[in-house]
Amino acid sequence: MDGKRAEAFSDGVFAVAITLLALELKVPGGEGPLSHRLVEIWPAYLAYVVSFLSIGIMWLNHHTLFNHVVRVDRLLLVLNLLLLMFVAVVPFLTEVIGDELGEHMRGGDATTVMVAYGLLMIAMSICFSTIWWYVAFRRDMLDARLEQEAVRRSIPRFGIGFVAYVLTTLIALVSPLAALVLFGLTALYYAFEHLPAARQLDPDAGPGAG
Amino acid sequence: MDGKRAEAFSDGVFAVAITLLALELKVPGGEGPLSHRLVEIWPAYLAYVVSFLSIGIMWLNHHTLFNHVVRVDRLLLVLNLLLLMFVAVVPFLTEVIGDELGEHMRGGDATTVMVAYGLLMIAMSICFSTIWWYVAFRRDMLDARLEQEAVRRSIPRFGIGFVAYVLTTLIALVSPLAALVLFGLTALYYAFEHLPAARQLDPDAGPGAG
Amino acid sequence: MDGKRAEAFSDGVFAVAITLLALELKVPGGEGPLSHRLVEIWPAYLAYVVSFLSIGIMWLNHHTLFNHVVRVDRLLLVLNLLLLMFVAVVPFLTEVIGDELGEHMRGGDATTVMVAYGLLMIAMSICFSTIWWYVAFRRDMLDARLEQEAVRRSIPRFGIGFVAYVLTTLIALVSPLAALVLFGLTALYYAFEHLPAARQLDPDAGPGAG
Amino acid sequence: MDGKRAEAFSDGVFAVAITLLALELKVPGGEGPLSHRLVEIWPAYLAYVVSFLSIGIMWLNHHTLFNHVVRVDRLLLVLNLLLLMFVAVVPFLTEVIGDELGEHMRGGDATTVMVAYGLLMIAMSICFSTIWWYVAFRRDMLDARLEQEAVRRSIPRFGIGFVAYVLTTLIALVSPLAALVLFGLTALYYAFEHLPAARQLDPDAGPGAG
Repeated sequence: MDGKRAEAFSDGVFAVAITLLALELKVPGGEGPLSHRLVEIWPAYLAYVVSFLSIGIMWLNHHTLFNHVVRVDRLLLVLNLLLLMFVAVVPFLTEVIGDELGEHMRGGDATTVMVAYGLLMIAMSICFSTIWWYVAFRRDMLDARLEQEAVRRSIPRFGIGFVAYVLTTLIALVSPLAALVLFGLTALYYAFEHLPAARQLDPDAGPGAG
Repeated sequence: MDGKRAEAFSDGVFAVAITLLALELKVPGGEGPLSHRLVEIWPAYLAYVVSFLSIGIMWLNHHTLFNHVVRVDRLLLVLNLLLLMFVAVVPFLTEVIGDELGEHMRGGDATTVMVAYGLLMIAMSICFSTIWWYVAFRRDMLDARLEQEAVRRSIPRFGIGFVAYVLTTLIALVSPLAALVLFGLTALYYAFEHLPAARQLDPDAGPGAG
Repeated sequence: MDGKRAEAFSDGVFAVAITLLALELKVPGGEGPLSHRLVEIWPAYLAYVVSFLSIGIMWLNHHTLFNHVVRVDRLLLVLNLLLLMFVAVVPFLTEVIGDELGEHMRGGDATTVMVAYGLLMIAMSICFSTIWWYVAFRRDMLDARLEQEAVRRSIPRFGIGFVAYVLTTLIALVSPLAALVLFGLTALYYAFEHLPAARQLDPDAGPGAG
Repeated sequence: MDGKRAEAFSDGVFAVAITLLALELKVPGGEGPLSHRLVEIWPAYLAYVVSFLSIGIMWLNHHTLFNHVVRVDRLLLVLNLLLLMFVAVVPFLTEVIGDELGEHMRGGDATTVMVAYGLLMIAMSICFSTIWWYVAFRRDMLDARLEQEAVRRSIPRFGIGFVAYVLTTLIALVSPLAALVLFGLTALYYAFEHLPAARQLDPDAGPGAG
């Protein structure tokens, strides 16, 4: 069983989830001119951008990871399903963020939703790390051209992302808005920091280009 | 006519249906703090998880089945369409479950929706078994490497799933919540129990890994 | 430029449109027990089944057609886009049908929506025929193994579907419900009646199996 | 890393965004007959057609561009993600256009939404040009059969589209409706005007057919 159709299905879920994000954008009704009402919901746009980057870059790394997977088994597919189960919840919480940061700005509720968002990011991060750890452990699933050493070195790197998500979730207790921005920056960090495995296969790629 | 594009279309429907599940999650309005309102809708989360696993694992088995199909005909494509017609209804009933178990907890309505959900699961199970039975009967559609004997033995196994769905639907008459949990467990059982055909092709795969 | 990515994109639109159909199903609020309210919306279920079959079988024939296309050009892609533009509107009108046949049953409004639905079906039928006519006319786009004669004979067949849609739209003026059922039957007819081209390539396929 | 899965993911986002456009169509409630209420929302249909063509033809050119890309890197994937982030917003603004042009026709609000739509089109145009400029600049990403000269000549052409979008956005200040029609015509222009690269590879293709 190869991973092609698992990739196609995952691509579908990532693509639908990322596109549904914008469906949650709603212009508030009311008496003011539309230009005010469109600007008023800027936290919803910020949440849209952060969630779009988070899902998009998660997809990008999923793509890189499965590029190195030559064989999948049932357990890997179930772990992947678990990851997708959390990915599909992102639009729901993104809408709640837009509502809470935008309309009420009440400390309590804004904190609640950003902590929930942080826990969701942590759950996705754990699933992703488990998948990588699982295929790295069962070496017959990985492309044989990857150096054992490079694979081993890659594992602690995921730990950094995990720690970043936990710290940002704690920051949400103090400033929900700062936490939202930090989640966006973490996604951008992951956009250019990649699984070292890829670099091993393509030694000519310069930094930020491989 | 090979099955590649039928798989691509089915992957699309499965991926959209599974991602739309989360679109049905709605935070109730009201006066209480968001943390209470987020926790209050736990039956909606449970329904989400159960439906996600049910569709996800149905996809997984669909994937395994079509891996062994070397040729499709019009009737198979129409049967597949019928299966997808039921799959696409799952988000609708999942939303109703969240509403009924969450808001009212009235015995009558919660029972109604769980019985409807059970009938939907039974309908999907019948479609899936019919597809497998049809390709097993018309041997020129199946990969020739499958042993005739293994294919025959696989057919009664589907009967077990069918009986599980019928029994769980009956349990819904007594306890809708217990039925919902049992549907989730049935999905998990199907995650690791697979079409024996796959094992025949890959004799080295250990239990739970093939 | 081959047609692979056009097929992938079309599959996506067909799959999303067909799955969104169920998103339009809504249980009416109100005082009655859920079982009554679920049964009450039976016209919405009927509309769902008819539209699912219509889109599903349109996809099936799209699949068969593009199987024979070896080269695509810009005009063909634009025609295909036009077809998809009508396909994506089906969920919108399906929802209106459910509302109008279900809630009001007022002759005037039910007639209006079924005539609109009929016009949509006619538009899809015209786009599909134009695509087939275009690739049949520019023979370098079609698989060379198709017999010229078989291709020519296939063109009037589409006319039958067109006439069926026009007649059913006229019937909607008298009985909207009968028209809805007839649209479903027309879709089923197309499920088993196929482009003769396919039969020419696969002379061993029996009736209903190729 | 080749571009296949990036194309599959992009196809998914384009297909979902284009199909969600129709989800924004809503029949207004009210006392009048359905036929009046269906006709009343004609600006929403016009916005649907213009946005469908805009996304569809953006997909078409994306398809043509990636056909010539033989290698992708992280930066290209992030640029592509940025493009998709704007594409996914189109259904949101399309719904607002339908509402504002249809219900209120107030000069101020209609102007606001059409200027916002214009800015969105400009953003998509900039992303698309940047992607083309990036792959044209790093020649190892482009199919070696493309003539250097043809690639260079293609770059100013995108400038024309950019200027058209800016001018149309300015026209929106005077007539929102005229601007909407002009955006549709610009999309149609792009449908038949294509990346010159394609013509270089296929010298036999006549005008409008390559």
